Amino acid sequence: MTPTQTEIVSAACPHPLDPASIDELNTATELVRKQFDSDVKLFFYAAGLHEPAKKILRPFLQAERAGKYLNMPAREICVIVGIARTPRNFEVIVNVTEKVVKSLVELPRTSLPPLVPSEITLAMEITMASDLVKAEVERLQMPLDQVFPEAWDYGRDSENEYDRKVQVFMYARNPETNHPESNVYAFPLDFLVILDMTKEEVESVQHLPLGASASKNRSQNTVRKTGKPIEPEYVHELQSHSMRKSVKPLQVIQPEGPGFQASGNLIEWEKWRFRVGFNWREGMTLHDVTLDGREVLYRIALSEMSVPYGDPRAPLHRKSAFDLGTYGAGYTANNLGLGCDCLGVIKYLDGNLVESDGRAYTSKNVICIHEVDAGIQWKHTNLNTGKAVVVRRRQLHLQMIITVANYEYAFYFILDQSGEIMFETLATGILSTTPIDPEETKKCRFGTRVASGVLAPYHQHIFNLRIDPCIDGDGNSVEVIDSVPMPLDEDNPYGIGYVTESRTVSRSGTEQLDAEKGRVFKIVNPNRINATSGQPVGYKLVPIVSQRALAHPTSWHARRSQFGSAPVWITKYRDHELYAAGNYTNQSDGDDGLQAYVARDEPVENQDIVLWHTFSFTHNPRPEDFPVMPCETARVVLKPNGFFDFNPTLDVPPSNQCFNKSVSYEESKNQAGMQTSGQEVPCCKTKAKIHRVEG
Amino acid sequence: MTPTQTEIVSAACPHPLDPASIDELNTATELVRKQFDSDVKLFFYAAGLHEPAKKILRPFLQAERAGKYLNMPAREICVIVGIARTPRNFEVIVNVTEKVVKSLVELPRTSLPPLVPSEITLAMEITMASDLVKAEVERLQMPLDQVFPEAWDYGRDSENEYDRKVQVFMYARNPETNHPESNVYAFPLDFLVILDMTKEEVESVQHLPLGASASKNRSQNTVRKTGKPIEPEYVHELQSHSMRKSVKPLQVIQPEGPGFQASGNLIEWEKWRFRVGFNWREGMTLHDVTLDGREVLYRIALSEMSVPYGDPRAPLHRKSAFDLGTYGAGYTANNLGLGCDCLGVIKYLDGNLVESDGRAYTSKNVICIHEVDAGIQWKHTNLNTGKAVVVRRRQLHLQMIITVANYEYAFYFILDQSGEIMFETLATGILSTTPIDPEETKKCRFGTRVASGVLAPYHQHIFNLRIDPCIDGDGNSVEVIDSVPMPLDEDNPYGIGYVTESRTVSRSGTEQLDAEKGRVFKIVNPNRINATSGQPVGYKLVPIVSQRALAHPTSWHARRSQFGSAPVWITKYRDHELYAAGNYTNQSDGDDGLQAYVARDEPVENQDIVLWHTFSFTHNPRPEDFPVMPCETARVVLKPNGFFDFNPTLDVPPSNQCFNKSVSYEESKNQAGMQTSGQEVPCCKTKAKIHRVEG
Repeated sequence: MTPTQTEIVSAACPHPLDPASIDELNTATELVRKQFDSDVKLFFYAAGLHEPAKKILRPFLQAERAGKYLNMPAREICVIVGIARTPRNFEVIVNVTEKVVKSLVELPRTSLPPLVPSEITLAMEITMASDLVKAEVERLQMPLDQVFPEAWDYGRDSENEYDRKVQVFMYARNPETNHPESNVYAFPLDFLVILDMTKEEVESVQHLPLGASASKNRSQNTVRKTGKPIEPEYVHELQSHSMRKSVKPLQVIQPEGPGFQASGNLIEWEKWRFRVGFNWREGMTLHDVTLDGREVLYRIALSEMSVPYGDPRAPLHRKSAFDLGTYGAGYTANNLGLGCDCLGVIKYLDGNLVESDGRAYTSKNVICIHEVDAGIQWKHTNLNTGKAVVVRRRQLHLQMIITVANYEYAFYFILDQSGEIMFETLATGILSTTPIDPEETKKCRFGTRVASGVLAPYHQHIFNLRIDPCIDGDGNSVEVIDSVPMPLDEDNPYGIGYVTESRTVSRSGTEQLDAEKGRVFKIVNPNRINATSGQPVGYKLVPIVSQRALAHPTSWHARRSQFGSAPVWITKYRDHELYAAGNYTNQSDGDDGLQAYVARDEPVENQDIVLWHTFSFTHNPRPEDFPVMPCETARVVLKPNGFFDFNPTLDVPPSNQCFNKSVSYEESKNQAGMQTSGQEVPCCKTKAKIHRVEG
Repeated sequence: MTPTQTEIVSAACPHPLDPASIDELNTATELVRKQFDSDVKLFFYAAGLHEPAKKILRPFLQAERAGKYLNMPAREICVIVGIARTPRNFEVIVNVTEKVVKSLVELPRTSLPPLVPSEITLAMEITMASDLVKAEVERLQMPLDQVFPEAWDYGRDSENEYDRKVQVFMYARNPETNHPESNVYAFPLDFLVILDMTKEEVESVQHLPLGASASKNRSQNTVRKTGKPIEPEYVHELQSHSMRKSVKPLQVIQPEGPGFQASGNLIEWEKWRFRVGFNWREGMTLHDVTLDGREVLYRIALSEMSVPYGDPRAPLHRKSAFDLGTYGAGYTANNLGLGCDCLGVIKYLDGNLVESDGRAYTSKNVICIHEVDAGIQWKHTNLNTGKAVVVRRRQLHLQMIITVANYEYAFYFILDQSGEIMFETLATGILSTTPIDPEETKKCRFGTRVASGVLAPYHQHIFNLRIDPCIDGDGNSVEVIDSVPMPLDEDNPYGIGYVTESRTVSRSGTEQLDAEKGRVFKIVNPNRINATSGQPVGYKLVPIVSQRALAHPTSWHARRSQFGSAPVWITKYRDHELYAAGNYTNQSDGDDGLQAYVARDEPVENQDIVLWHTFSFTHNPRPEDFPVMPCETARVVLKPNGFFDFNPTLDVPPSNQCFNKSVSYEESKNQAGMQTSGQEVPCCKTKAKIHRVEG
């Protein structure tokens, strides 16, 4: 196999879109360190690729795809660093190609760096060493080694509150076992701990409300300290019942290997070509997505995710997490395992991150890529001849799974042969719980009882997907298309006619869904006309229809997650404007983010635009969601709509038995162990019941 | 293996829910024939199981599941038969156990039997033999053997119009090839044919409008008669381009055989137990669905499907099909093929139908059943210890695919281990087209140009799923639950609180969706309380959010498909009330159906109730949908919500490499051909990045 030009370039030096390498991260943090006196102790929060400006990168990518070569843009790393035990923080851009610091900006006090794993560990240590905490545990007559602290971002409670804080929810292991794998969320303690992270000490202990309403006095009843009757545990070894034996192996075999080619982070599959990025914040990103040589997307990634809780009782009213901006989907990405998270032939990609001391490290297998058979792509039986043709639907799945404290989220980019790009969200993991007086449970209207004295409060998961399109090149617009009945008149005398009404969005702003009008959002390129339809080429967004953020507009939940107030946002592109809730979400005041971007009121017709889709799960827990939650899924689809002149999967070979080697139930029952039928069953020659009529 | 009592009973005589056997159908039609003088020529439209009354069947099923035995209800067959070449039709119930006719009712003139394959064949023959048609084909200077007639139900045009009619849309094969597999929908002719099916002759030929509006005079331009440039064909052999070579085999291997047990039509899988039915009208039905020994559903099936077209120009304004009530999903069910329609180990079920002369025949492989790995069911990583636990999501898929003229629909019932029951609809096949003056195309607002002179009109696919629940036994109610913000007051001082508001539906009627309120419909059994939540046990409906029927309420499209006017309908159960658009949909006047059932205004709280969910695709064709349409899918989910005390999949063994035998990309590339790794990769022991803190 001869290497392609792209591969040669990749081998020589990193591609402008390659994630930061270990060397680059170390170079960057070392250069940052040199900006400070040697006795200044720094705390490195995060570092990752600072993507080149579009006006530089896009010509490069276009030339590269055309087999030409332009000068490689310099590689830059963005470092977020603070002076330890002070409120001073900095955003530094380092040119690692030239090994120079390009810019160093001290962040305003309103911009707090994220809450990263090393600080979470520190917070847990401070908590467990605290005499205040020990006194609370003693009050509960509980051994200290049974206690489990879970550090969360502090949230926000008032204006002008910028001291760096962490709140720690307190749980205990099952007192019957004190097993390290026991489900601590079945044993929430009745206090939380506020840490001052500048002083690195406990600021206060706050007792949790145990009554069913915010205005009711705290109940005298206290936390549960018995694990009897044995709680349902999610870890198999701790379960009291035996495993079901009925699940038989089901394996995916790809005898000729995978259908995709991975050259570094460049993936080619079924006429698709794109680059996979990875950074501490968004985790997986896709770039320069083309199909059959035509541009579709410049960049796509989940931009933010907010989880506001609906329990109104102080101090739980601050409970709300920005899982991307504050915790970092890259930092929280799981190290995926062969045979655990996917079936078939799996390509894994690693990701590089930094420790708080600036040292870079590799997180293994943070992204996996594999093919999936998703059933039928299309089928038709010619009733006149009886001939049936089936083409199956092969997909490429790119997966990342993050663990943010109690919850897990799996995120998938899914491409198929028909030109669809899907973003799927899967929520699982464990409910965050709080104690409640058992007598009060019935009166509680903002949570579900999941065990005696344990409440799982209602909450929302609010996601925003950032779609930076370049549908068939430069100059895109968004059309809002409704299907509406024609009026009863001479053009519609029988009352059955309906038509589409289309409007092109002219200025940056928000749009509403309208299922009753069958509303469709189409990203079009008005400069390219589809030869078949005579309309501009385009892709449509099939949005997730869901509930907006429920918190009152004046509340901190709402102010900090304004992207949750509308399902569709359209902005004019700006470099490094990537995050729906703004650049710094930890203890944010809500001044930055989508509402600020659209307020520029810019033209978005035939422009370089970005479409942002907000969707949510309103998660009112079920008993079935405990002690671990069966996945909840939702899928956004980008679907070609007049991008192609006709069905782009016509050249996918038909589905048949020689290729698919299915086995009949009866044969399988008779010969369990033998895999494939010796006989080749004639396929797709079904004799239909309707008879041929000669014309 | 010792047979269970159920199997012994099944072997002895058919189960009350088994589909009609060949013998039973032949016995029934013979007994029907004896009701008429021997010189009367009968036309048998359809015959199938007449299910026992619930008050008889339900105790039988309960006893059977308890291992007891009650007297077997008599087997009855319902036969729809007409006297050929007359408007006289009959519905006959035959007791085939006793071999007696139980009832014979002459149908009112307003109830026309369905349009079944044998009559469609007859209609095509009448058309092609007609001098009127031959004259039209001559006018078009087209060889007759190039012409393809497609018979559709006539629809309805006015009050008191009950003469049995068929309309025939006319197409031609590609004139360049005249190949029998060519895509005729690329060559729509400019006339349709109305048949009088009582006289068995052509009643009239009607010319189609070629202009862009109903009020405009017909254009002089005529149909296309050239296939150049070569049209995209969907049949691979006819395509001008070569097949892509990039798709590599992906096979599903189940070395220990399937995880389900099929004993006749009784299926047992992962604690689920249910019976699969099949009849000419609904095709696949599920009955007596229990989970871990607890009742969930008495019966579930797609009840109706209507496809109204939005092209307002006469005579196309009648274009609208009831694919179940008029064509019959059983009659139009595909004979599925091993390796074509599914992967893995497949169980096929046959179905029995009758010819117009009353002879029964078997349609092979009309339903298939197989397991699917649907990714991750749940996962959690304990950040304190680094231990990750993953359980995969195994599903059982039951599939039926129907071909109704141009279109294909695949219908799936999908069960999973977490108690979910899904109904998935997949639409594919070919767009129904009509000719248009190429000059007029741009002005047309109710269709998409898919080729020169060829318009694919806008239309809706409106489905209704009938859910007959018995959640944990008798007496069910429907709760409508909204998630709403709390008012800003002393109980919600921070404005972040939200609660659920619940209302129990008391009388039969319709309900609206409300995504902005996160509205959920919960079917509960108020007589059983969930031990964990303290609420009644229940299942929630996750509806498909879609557009209502667009036709004007006074139009025939709307009057005949009133079930399309609301997404949720709740009725009190009545025996044999199964169809959303009424019992006889062919040329129906809209008097029968859901609107009539709910008008009884019956109590539905803690009653035997039925929930009917209407959903739609508003299908404004894309160029990509031609010459064959990539699948469009939608899924309704019934999800346990307080049915279980905790996650019912805790006892599903964890996912690991020993079981799943995945292969790394690199290993696969190195050893394409070798399937499984020799080394056992340690699995699910991922070392997480967040560090353990000892309490």
